[in-house]
Amino acid sequence: QSSVTLSGVIDVGFEKRFSGDPFKMTPNRNGTSNWTLSGSEDLGGGLKANFQISTSFNADDGSIAAHTINDGLPSPAVTCPSTTSRCNNTSSLGNNGMFVGLSGGFGTVRMGRPVNTLYGNALFANGTKGVSNYDANTLLARDIAGAANTVYVNNAIQYHSPRFSGVQVQLEYAPKESTSGKNGRGLAIRYDEGPISVTFTNYLGATSSTTQKSVNQLAAAYDFGVARVLFTWRDQGGAASNADNSYALGMTAPVGPGLVYVSYNVRELAATDARSVIAGYKYNLSKRTQMYVNVANGNSALNVPGTTPAKSSTGYGFGLQHNF
Amino acid sequence: QSSVTLSGVIDVGFEKRFSGDPFKMTPNRNGTSNWTLSGSEDLGGGLKANFQISTSFNADDGSIAAHTINDGLPSPAVTCPSTTSRCNNTSSLGNNGMFVGLSGGFGTVRMGRPVNTLYGNALFANGTKGVSNYDANTLLARDIAGAANTVYVNNAIQYHSPRFSGVQVQLEYAPKESTSGKNGRGLAIRYDEGPISVTFTNYLGATSSTTQKSVNQLAAAYDFGVARVLFTWRDQGGAASNADNSYALGMTAPVGPGLVYVSYNVRELAATDARSVIAGYKYNLSKRTQMYVNVANGNSALNVPGTTPAKSSTGYGFGLQHNF
Amino acid sequence: QSSVTLSGVIDVGFEKRFSGDPFKMTPNRNGTSNWTLSGSEDLGGGLKANFQISTSFNADDGSIAAHTINDGLPSPAVTCPSTTSRCNNTSSLGNNGMFVGLSGGFGTVRMGRPVNTLYGNALFANGTKGVSNYDANTLLARDIAGAANTVYVNNAIQYHSPRFSGVQVQLEYAPKESTSGKNGRGLAIRYDEGPISVTFTNYLGATSSTTQKSVNQLAAAYDFGVARVLFTWRDQGGAASNADNSYALGMTAPVGPGLVYVSYNVRELAATDARSVIAGYKYNLSKRTQMYVNVANGNSALNVPGTTPAKSSTGYGFGLQHNF
Repeated sequence: QSSVTLSGVIDVGFEKRFSGDPFKMTPNRNGTSNWTLSGSEDLGGGLKANFQISTSFNADDGSIAAHTINDGLPSPAVTCPSTTSRCNNTSSLGNNGMFVGLSGGFGTVRMGRPVNTLYGNALFANGTKGVSNYDANTLLARDIAGAANTVYVNNAIQYHSPRFSGVQVQLEYAPKESTSGKNGRGLAIRYDEGPISVTFTNYLGATSSTTQKSVNQLAAAYDFGVARVLFTWRDQGGAASNADNSYALGMTAPVGPGLVYVSYNVRELAATDARSVIAGYKYNLSKRTQMYVNVANGNSALNVPGTTPAKSSTGYGFGLQHNF
Repeated sequence: QSSVTLSGVIDVGFEKRFSGDPFKMTPNRNGTSNWTLSGSEDLGGGLKANFQISTSFNADDGSIAAHTINDGLPSPAVTCPSTTSRCNNTSSLGNNGMFVGLSGGFGTVRMGRPVNTLYGNALFANGTKGVSNYDANTLLARDIAGAANTVYVNNAIQYHSPRFSGVQVQLEYAPKESTSGKNGRGLAIRYDEGPISVTFTNYLGATSSTTQKSVNQLAAAYDFGVARVLFTWRDQGGAASNADNSYALGMTAPVGPGLVYVSYNVRELAATDARSVIAGYKYNLSKRTQMYVNVANGNSALNVPGTTPAKSSTGYGFGLQHNF
Repeated sequence: QSSVTLSGVIDVGFEKRFSGDPFKMTPNRNGTSNWTLSGSEDLGGGLKANFQISTSFNADDGSIAAHTINDGLPSPAVTCPSTTSRCNNTSSLGNNGMFVGLSGGFGTVRMGRPVNTLYGNALFANGTKGVSNYDANTLLARDIAGAANTVYVNNAIQYHSPRFSGVQVQLEYAPKESTSGKNGRGLAIRYDEGPISVTFTNYLGATSSTTQKSVNQLAAAYDFGVARVLFTWRDQGGAASNADNSYALGMTAPVGPGLVYVSYNVRELAATDARSVIAGYKYNLSKRTQMYVNVANGNSALNVPGTTPAKSSTGYGFGLQHNF
C-alpha cells in the first residue's frame, strides 16, 4: 500500500563509561533505535497532508522510556514509571516524533509531538550521540525548563515558513493542559545557504504554575568541504550569571568510507564548569549499515553517574547501527 | 507481502470544553488515532481466515489508555495505571479491536477483543465523537455494567450469522477468567435493507461476583437521502426507574464536500436528566484527509469534568484527521 | 519497501486447566501471538546485516507481559508490573526476540535480546506449548537461575559458528549491567545431520550478587520418518541431588493434514517429582492457518496454580492460529 512507509533503525553496542563501570551492552549511542510509520498525500493545488508516528526503544532489552505527561506544569519530581497520573507509563507510540499536518506554498504546519524547536535547531557534531553522559545534549539540555528539556514536545503545533533567500521562520506553541499550568512557545529564525547554517531560537517554558523561563540559543555551522564545523550556544534565563550558559563546539569530517566527529562541550556551573570531549568514527558497511566507535573524556565537574567521588573520567564504546 | 495490510488513522486538534477550560490540544475528537494490521486468507471452499490487530493512541503525547483487565468481575474502583494486577499497565496492542477468526457460508466467528455487541449496534450521529464529555457514547455508556461499558470487550467470542432477507443474528460470549467472576454475553438481532437499519441488543454483564445486570438497546436509522436520521435507546436493568434510560437522537447530512452532523443525547438521572447537543462539520480535503469543527452544549446535570459548580456549558473544537 | 518484512502470528483459543477451573479464553497455547519486523541486507563479499524486532502479546486482551529488566542480578522477588525500577512496565518491543547483527563466512553474530542459548537448543515435542502449566518449558525452566529462566535474554551477544560436518558451536555472553551483578554466559555444541540432532549446552547465571549457578542441558532428536522423537534433559547445579534434574520426552508425527504430538515431562522435587503428559493435534486449514486441540494430565506434585489442595488434574484446550 503506497499510503504508508514503514522504516526504522536498530542500534546496539557496548560501552564502559569510566574506570570501575561495568563493560556493558548499551543501545542507541550512534543512532536512535525506532520504528516509524510515515506518509504524504497529495491533496492537489500544491497542498499535501503529512504524518509521522515514530517510536524509539532500547534494543538491548525492549524497554521504552516512560515519560512525563506534559500538562503545562514544570517537570514533577516523580521518577517514571510511577503510579502518579503525571507518568505516561504506557507510552509506546510516537515518543520519537509524531505529527499530522499540512504543507503547501504557505509553509508547513505540524500538530502532535514534533521535534522541540530548540533541539531542532541545535547544531551538534554528532546528533549529541556518543558515550553516555558525555554527549553534547546531556550537557546543554540539563536544567532547561519544562517541555524544552526533551527532544520532542507534547501537545505542540508548529509552523515553518517557506525559505525566502535561505531564511525560514519557525513558530511553536504548546498550550497548557490544565488551568494552573503555563503555555510553552518557541521561535526560531534560520538561515541556510550553501555551506552556511545559522539559527537563533528563543524558547519560553514553565518553571512553576506562575512563572516561565526563557532560553536563548544561537547555533551556526560552516562546511569547509574537508570538514564541517558546528557551534551551539545556550543562555538560560533566570539562572545565576556564572551558571547560565552552555555550549558545544564540534567538527565532522569524511574519512575513508566513513565520518570522523569530535565535540567539545561545556556547561557552566557555580563552581568548576563541567567539560567533556567526545569523538568517534562511523564506518559505513553500506548506505544503511554502520559500525561505530566512540571515546570520551570529562572533567570532575561532569560527574558521570556512578563515578564516586566526582573525578575526571574516560569512557569508550562501539556498536552496530542498521537502518531499514 | 500480500498477507498483511498496514493501515491507520492520525487525528489531532484543539478544543475548549467550557468557559474557564484551557484551550488545549486534544486528539481523537473526529476519528480514533490507530495503527492496524489486518488480513484475510482464502482457505478454499468459501472459507476464509481473518484477523485484525488495531491499536489506538493519543497522537498529542503518545499515551495509550491503560485499561482494566477483564476477569469477569465488575470494573474495580482502581484508576489505571496502578500496580494492582487488574490494571493492564502495559497494554499496547489491540485496544482498538483485535481478533482472529473464520468466515464462510455459515457466517463469521471472531475470537479476541472484538467490538462490543452493544456498541457495534449503537447508531450514533457521529460515531460518538465531538467535544469531549458531550458525546453520545459518554452519556449512554456511563454506569453500564462490566465489559459492556467499553467499546471493545476482552476474552470474547462472537458469531455473526449470514443475512437472510436483511436479518442478521449476532451472539457474543465472554467467559469469566476466574471462578468468582461472572460471564458476559450479548445477543443482537439486526435488520438492514435499503435505507432502513434496525437493531435490538441485550447485554448481560457482571455487577458483583454473584449478580449480573442486563442492558437492552434499541437502535434504528433511516436514510432520507438528503439526511440520515439515527436513534439509539438504552434501558439499564436493575437501576431505579427514573435513572435507567438513556438515548441519542442524531442526524447526518452531506453538505458540499463534507458532512454535517448533530446529535441530541439524554441520560436519565434521579434529579435533573443530563442533556447535551453536539454538532459539527467534516470537510473532506480528500478521500483520506478531513478537517473538522465541533460545537456542543450541555445542561448543568451533564457536569463536564472541570466545571465547578455544575452549570450549563458550551464547548468547541477543530482538528485534522488523516487516514493511511 | 524491500528492506523490511512485516509478519506475525495471532493465536486465540479456549482451555479448562482442571476440574473447577473456569472454561476460559486463553491465547498462545499453540503458537505465540506476535508482530515482527525483520530484514537482511547484502553488504557484499558474503557479508550480511540482519535484524529482527519481534513483539509478542496476548491476543485475548492485548496485554504484553511486563518483564524484569536484566541488570545481571538474580530475578527480584517483585511481581511486575510494579513501580520498582527493576520492572520494565513499559516494555512493548522485542520481547519475542530482537537483535541486530552480521553474518558471513565466519558465522553469525547477534546483539540485543536473542533466544537464550539454553532454550534455543532445547528439543521439545511441541515448542513447549499446550495446556497452560503442563507444558515442558514450565517444568524444565522453573528454578533455573537468572537470565536462563526466560526464552529470550536481555543484553546478550551471541556467536554461532558455521557448520563443519554438521557441528556448530554457539557462544552467548550477557554482561552484567551493574557492578554488583554477575555476567551470564552460555556455551552450546550442536550436531545436525540428516535425521539426527544432538546438542549439549552449559549456562552460567547469577543467583546472588556474589554467586553463579551452572545449568547443563543435553538434548537429542531422531526423525524416523513416520515420527520424530525428541528428548531434553537438564541438570541444575547447586540444587539438592534429589531435586536437580528435569526432562521432557516427546514425539511428533504427521497424521492426515496435520501433526500429532505428545510429551512426557518430569521435574525432580525433594518429595514426589512433578510429572505431566501433554498431547495434541494441529490441523492445517492451510499453510498459514491451523486449528488445534490439546489435552494434558499432571500428578499432584505438578500443583497447577488454582488446584487446591494439590491433586492430580486433567486439562484441555483448543483454538485457532493464523500466521501473516
